[in-house]
This record gives sequence, C-alpha cells and structure tokens, in this order.
Amino acid sequence: MRRLPLTLLAASLLLATGIASAATPTTIPATAVKTAERLRDKAMHDDTGYRIVESLTTEVGPRMAGSDADQRARDWAVAKFKALGYDKVYTEAVTYPLWERRSEHAAIVGPFAQPLVLSALGYSPGTPKGGLTAQVVKFDSLDALKAADPASVKGKIVYIGYRMQRAKDGHDYGMGSAVRTAGPPIAAAKGAAGYLLRSAGTDAHDRIAHTGVTGFRDPAKAIPAAALSNLDADQLERVLAYGKPVTLKLDLDCGVVGEYTGANVIGEITGRKHPDQVVAIGGHLDSWDPGTGAIDDGAGVAIAMAAGKLIRDLPQRPDRTIRVIAFANEEMGLWGGRAYADKHAGEVAKFQLGTESDFGAGPVWRMSASVKPEARKAIAQIAKVLAPIGVTYDAKKPGGGGSDLSQMHGKGMAALSLTQDGTHYFDWHHTANDTLDKIDPKELAQNVAVYAAFSYMAAQADGDFGSAPGAFANDGAGE
Amino acid sequence: MRRLPLTLLAASLLLATGIASAATPTTIPATAVKTAERLRDKAMHDDTGYRIVESLTTEVGPRMAGSDADQRARDWAVAKFKALGYDKVYTEAVTYPLWERRSEHAAIVGPFAQPLVLSALGYSPGTPKGGLTAQVVKFDSLDALKAADPASVKGKIVYIGYRMQRAKDGHDYGMGSAVRTAGPPIAAAKGAAGYLLRSAGTDAHDRIAHTGVTGFRDPAKAIPAAALSNLDADQLERVLAYGKPVTLKLDLDCGVVGEYTGANVIGEITGRKHPDQVVAIGGHLDSWDPGTGAIDDGAGVAIAMAAGKLIRDLPQRPDRTIRVIAFANEEMGLWGGRAYADKHAGEVAKFQLGTESDFGAGPVWRMSASVKPEARKAIAQIAKVLAPIGVTYDAKKPGGGGSDLSQMHGKGMAALSLTQDGTHYFDWHHTANDTLDKIDPKELAQNVAVYAAFSYMAAQADGDFGSAPGAFANDGAGE
Repeated sequence: MRRLPLTLLAASLLLATGIASAATPTTIPATAVKTAERLRDKAMHDDTGYRIVESLTTEVGPRMAGSDADQRARDWAVAKFKALGYDKVYTEAVTYPLWERRSEHAAIVGPFAQPLVLSALGYSPGTPKGGLTAQVVKFDSLDALKAADPASVKGKIVYIGYRMQRAKDGHDYGMGSAVRTAGPPIAAAKGAAGYLLRSAGTDAHDRIAHTGVTGFRDPAKAIPAAALSNLDADQLERVLAYGKPVTLKLDLDCGVVGEYTGANVIGEITGRKHPDQVVAIGGHLDSWDPGTGAIDDGAGVAIAMAAGKLIRDLPQRPDRTIRVIAFANEEMGLWGGRAYADKHAGEVAKFQLGTESDFGAGPVWRMSASVKPEARKAIAQIAKVLAPIGVTYDAKKPGGGGSDLSQMHGKGMAALSLTQDGTHYFDWHHTANDTLDKIDPKELAQNVAVYAAFSYMAAQADGDFGSAPGAFANDGAGE
Repeated sequence: MRRLPLTLLAASLLLATGIASAATPTTIPATAVKTAERLRDKAMHDDTGYRIVESLTTEVGPRMAGSDADQRARDWAVAKFKALGYDKVYTEAVTYPLWERRSEHAAIVGPFAQPLVLSALGYSPGTPKGGLTAQVVKFDSLDALKAADPASVKGKIVYIGYRMQRAKDGHDYGMGSAVRTAGPPIAAAKGAAGYLLRSAGTDAHDRIAHTGVTGFRDPAKAIPAAALSNLDADQLERVLAYGKPVTLKLDLDCGVVGEYTGANVIGEITGRKHPDQVVAIGGHLDSWDPGTGAIDDGAGVAIAMAAGKLIRDLPQRPDRTIRVIAFANEEMGLWGGRAYADKHAGEVAKFQLGTESDFGAGPVWRMSASVKPEARKAIAQIAKVLAPIGVTYDAKKPGGGGSDLSQMHGKGMAALSLTQDGTHYFDWHHTANDTLDKIDPKELAQNVAVYAAFSYMAAQADGDFGSAPGAFANDGAGE
C-alpha cells in the first residue's frame, strides 16, 4: 500500500473536521476562471499542438540524445518557440555520457537456426567482434533471477520473459521497466554473459522491439543487453519448450563513446506582475531512435508549447511567467530534468506550480496534486474547469510533476499529475511504431486545453501552492 | 468485364434449358458424401493443421528460396510427410536464379535528414558501393508513371504512392502487386536510377515494409527497387509536401548470385483403385525472409498436409491418390508451380481435380470451379457438404487452382478456387509480421475441413471433372 503522505494526511484531517486553516487560502479570481474556461474551449478546437508535433516529427524525426539530430532538434525548438511568439527563448546546457547504437543483430544458433529481432538497450556495451554466442537461461520474473544461483547463470545469456499488460494508467510499466533497468546489473553481478528481456511493451502482434535504458551504474560491470520483440520472445519460448539447450548469438555494435553537451530549450511567456514567479510545464525533446518520437515525447513538447502560445495570444500577459521546458535526454536517465533541478533548486519557492506531459497523446482523465493544504481550494477550482473535458480530480493521490519535472518536485516544487489515457501507449513506446499516425488530433487538443487552462489559473492565483525547499519530500509521488 | 468462359457458357445453357448432357454426369456416391461429412466434422475439431504450421514456423522459421533454410525446409517437409504416415514421399528438382538480400538501408538526405524503413524487392540489383543518392519524383499511380515524360524521370528515384485498400477477396492486390512488379521495369526503361513504392500492404500503423518480387525480365536493365513501409511512405509524402526537392539515399546490398536447385516436396496417400489418378492439393514451402511465413504460406502447406493426413486415417485408402505438393519458390515467380506443370503436362488427364491454398489462414467462404459441364452436379454435392461450415458456391466464377497449381490448370487440369477471407491478409503479407500469432487455430481447422472433404469426394467420384490437355484455356481464371 502507498504510504499516506504527511501533508495530505494533514489536509485530509482538515477537510474531515472542517477546521479552517489559519493561513489565507489560495484562490483563483473569478475573472481568471472565466478566461481559463474560454482558453479551454478555444484549445479544444485548435490545432496548434498537432501542427507542432507534426513539424517536429517530420522536420527532425528521430532525435536520440547526442545524435546528429540532437542539435537539429534544439534548433527546431528555438525556432518554433520564436515563431509561436514566446517572449524569451534560451537554452541551458546539459552534459551526459554519449551512447551510440550502430548495428544490432541476433539469431538462434541452434536448435532451429533463425534470426531474431531485438534492440540494444541504452548504455549496453557492444558484444565482442564476431558476436557473443552462449546458451540462454530463461526466468519468468525479476524475482526469479534475483533468487537464481549464480552458477546457473554464469557465462550464459539471461532471458526474462515478463509480459506487460495493458492498463489505462500504464501501471504495469513499473514491473516492465524494472525488468529492463534492474535486470541487467543483477544478471551481470551473477556472471551472466548477456541479457535479454521480452520487450517492455503491450503489443502482441508486432515484430518490433521496445528499446529503453538499462540501469548499469558501473560501465566496467556492464554486459550486452537487449530487448526481443514480443513476437521473437514468443518464438524463443516456443523453441525453449522443446527442452533442448538453446544457443543464441548476439551481435551488438553500440556503446558509450564519450560525453556530449546538449541543452534544455526553454521558452517563456513573461509574467506581467511577477515575472520571476513561474508556472513550469514541458515535455522532453529527445526521443529514442527507431521511431520519430511522436508519442514519446513530441506530444508532450507540443502540448506545452501550444498551451503557452494560447496564453500568449490573450489580450494581456498572465500575472506570472509561463515557462515551457523542452528537456534534454530524458530517455537515458532524466539528464535534462536532473540538470534543471540542480541548477534551479535554490529558486524552488519561485515555482508556482509545475507538471510535465510525458505519457503520450491520449486524453487527460485524472488530476492529482501535491500542494500545501491552503491551496486545495484553488486546485478544486482548476478541477472544476477541467471536469467538463473529462478530467476527474483525485484528491487523495499526490502529484508528481511528470518525468523530468519530478526532479524539481523533489526539490520542493508544488506539482500536479495530469494522467493521460495510456491504454495503448506501451504498444508503441520506444519502438519504430512511435510515429505521428498514433496521435489523434482531437485528443491532443484536449491535452492542450488542460495545460492552457491549469497553467493560466495557476499564473493568476491569489496566493501560492506551497513550493518551498523540501516541501513535498514525503508525499509519496516518487513511489 | 470478365469474359464468360466457353465451358461455363455451355454449362449455363444446359442448366437454363434443362437439357441433359449426352455424357454421363459425374457424381459422388452417397457413402462417400457421408464419409466426407464425418471428415469435415472431425477436422473442425482437429489441431493437426495448426501443429504443422507451428512446427514449420518454429523449427525452420523464415525460408527464402535458395537460402540456407531452403534445404532445412525441404528436410522438414520430407520428415513431416513421413511422420504423418504418407504412403509415398519424394522430391522433384526446381532450378531458379538465386537472389540474396544482404543488407538494406535508406534515408532522406535533405531536407529533414532521417532514416527510412524499406525492403529491397526480389531480383532487385544492389546499389553502387556507397549507395545511390538522387532526387525523388513522385507519382500517384502506375498509369501516371506510364504517361510520364522520360525527361522527368531520368536519373531520379521514382516513387509511386499507391495505397492498397482492405477487401475480403483481396482484389486490390491486383493493383498493389502491379505497382511492385510492372513499375520497376517501366521506370528503368525511362532512365530512372531507382524505384520505390509505398508497400503493397493494407496496414496503416506498422513501420514494417512489405517485400515481394519485381517483374524485371532482363537483369541487365534492372535498377535498384524497394518498398517503403506505409508509415515511411506517409513521412516521405509529408516531406515532399513542403515543395522542396527531396534527395534520398538508397543503400541496398542484394542481387542475383547464380543459380540454385531446390525442389518441390510431394507426399501421397496412394489411391486404392486408381493410384495413377490424383487429387492435387498443396501450398508453397518457401517464404519471404523477414517473417516466419506463417500465413504465406505455412498455412497452405499445413492445410493440405493435414487434409491428406485425415484422409489417410480413414479405415481404408481413398479410390484415387491424394497428392500434396509443397511447392518450391512460389514467391519469386511460381518457379515450383511452373516446373511442376512443365514436368507433368503430359499427365494432365490423370489429375482428377486440384487446388492450392495460398491466401493465409482465414476461413474459406467461397468455392468456384472450372470443370466440365457434366461434373457440375458433383461440384454441387461438394458445395452441399461445405455449406454448413460457411462456404458459398459461386457457380458463375471459374476455379483457378491457386498460385502454383494455376499452372497445371493452365495445362488443362480441372480446378477449384477455395477463397479465404483475406481482409487482414495484406496487413502482414511479405513482412516481419507474418508470424504464427496471425493464425486462428479454429479458422485454420475450417480450412483443413474444406480441403479434406472436397479432396475425398473428388477422389471417390464416379467419373471425372474434365481434365484434358488445354481443357480450360479460356475459362478466365487467369484474368
């Protein structure tokens, strides 16, 4: 069970007993609510968001962190912010290890020789020249691998056959991604020669592998690691079911080749009254390489950019600044989000409220928040504006701020979670099938409506949401 | 409009006027009909067919004609026929040009540099070392290419953006495959440097290319030719819509490397009374290389093998021989079917009736026949046995005999067409997604029921179906 965060516990008690807080509650002025409703309704019929993600996925396409396309993606983001009329556009450097994928092949050597479709995982080293040939040993779960005698694993290629299930909130990615990130170092520590997983993806009929990052902490102890497509995992399991030893050959040409300095790209609609106070929204600019990064996370970048643009088009600037951040290298370990939080931790009290969109392009169906108790009324006002477009307010869950902005939330930024319908997200996530056709323009517009309306209301609020150093350290959002 | 075949015209007149033919009509004895009904009902609940296709796709996997897997597929077929208890198992050599695919890459060079997913087409030559870089010129149809001024095409990469539509009978593959086979030589004759098509496939959300053969007659005049995945075709068209010249780079390492001798693999259940008279059924053993050839055409091989096996399991052998043929290299130009017809043309009158399964694993929903008028009553008897499992008899359409056996039909073999539901066939056809999961075991069992019941009735018929040299030359089946 999730621990009940202390701040929420306090809030619940206050609500339950009806005792008013001594502090002044934060509220949204009625005129701001009206403007937010108009913003929302306009956004629902506006295609700015879709045109942005179409532009990014067409003009840049795949943009793996540190690749040739990384610079082009940043140039695109700077130009797009400017074209959309943002008041201030700038970048902040982010440095990280540069991992390259050059080629990847695999095959069953015997019995039943045949090629397998896989994708090397981020930070996987390559195999020795000529490939790695070894027997495969199968486990059904990460726990089974943890419990395994190292002698049964030593020198072999570990394969974990965990099959992810679809869910609206995508919760099974918790285990799916753990198999991908935690599994390889565990196998390496037991002396495995290589690591394969059944893709952390919910598609059942596509011969396409889901890539993603591993959790190797020490490059010297890393082993070649890759994800088989779900269909190839099915095939491998059928071959294993014959009961004979199965030998695989992995031939991965990839690895860390140095360091790279990219950047978070930031656009601002400058606040009229409190320019130094910011509502922070965003997405991440990098994508994995096999697809064009439409749902992960062109959509998030587009939703935030379009929301800011719609606020910018109002007759006057909002009271506080709307800051849209296109983060660098989320995929290989929140590098952009961590660099951002490290740089801006000291200003955390200036962050009015924040959240990032990074779960595809399905409609937002749930809102939750980590804010001070005195700001719950303002959150309820936001919820009331979002309810007509399908968003339910869950007052019991914390708000984590999304992937990169979770790092600022960790420093004490008040944050929302705006949960999208991710039923099909993991069918395409981190694959060649992450392409523009997966985005429904109307669903994307609903997201822009949500972000525009909430951001504007937060910017106009009388009072704050409780951001302060370490304010939400125990809210449970990180669990 | 389809020409009305002369034999059918005669049959229609006879039926219309009620005048009995002077010749004795062919009929199926009542006991044989009863046995066929029992065979049908047993087959509907029998998994022999599914187990065969599972075995082929798992133990051999992809088996492109002339590849290392070609010999293993033939070994598998010989062993499987024997394991199923066939009375006679043998091979007949088939020789054809050996085409190899080694690697294939493509990219948009500019504007908007990014990789493209494609598949080189059968008999495509490779590009020069270092790749072929040229401007792309787009046409919407084959007719538009035919009408093009050679000056507009010379030195460029021709791209045809024809989009195939789904249909139960798959009729749009007529145009889809024409773009793939007829297009490349037309482009080459106009001086094009290369040729690309939007995949001849009906999927709209898979970044996977549909390969297939080209129609180059003269290797000296061939140019590099490949199919873009539908999603990459969408992307290329979006880039072209910016109105700037678009340059592509193709890097295909493939080509004809000599000649190869494979074989048709044949299994027989020997006829008790007329061992030299045969009912011929089958599928093709080769597959394209990206998938495991489950629907194309592991299913067909399995359906025919399982049908023969069920007939073999009857208390006594049928009157005539059931001949199951697993054809060699259908994919690159009916090489197995043509070799078979050339070798056996002189015995055509001994072929009681025949047809091949090569349209996936969907249920058979329509039967049509090219037979002599006096055999229409027997065909109606077959239709009556198949009706309860969803097969409608279309007495106006000819029966073509399927892909390879169309060649024996061309020599005069009486033939059926047993049309499967191909609504989704072209979603997966010739792609990496042609895998076992696409087969519904119950639908496959229905196919086995159809083949077992019809084959048995044809084998037991009193009289023949009209096979004779040149008998059905004008029946329109080839149109």
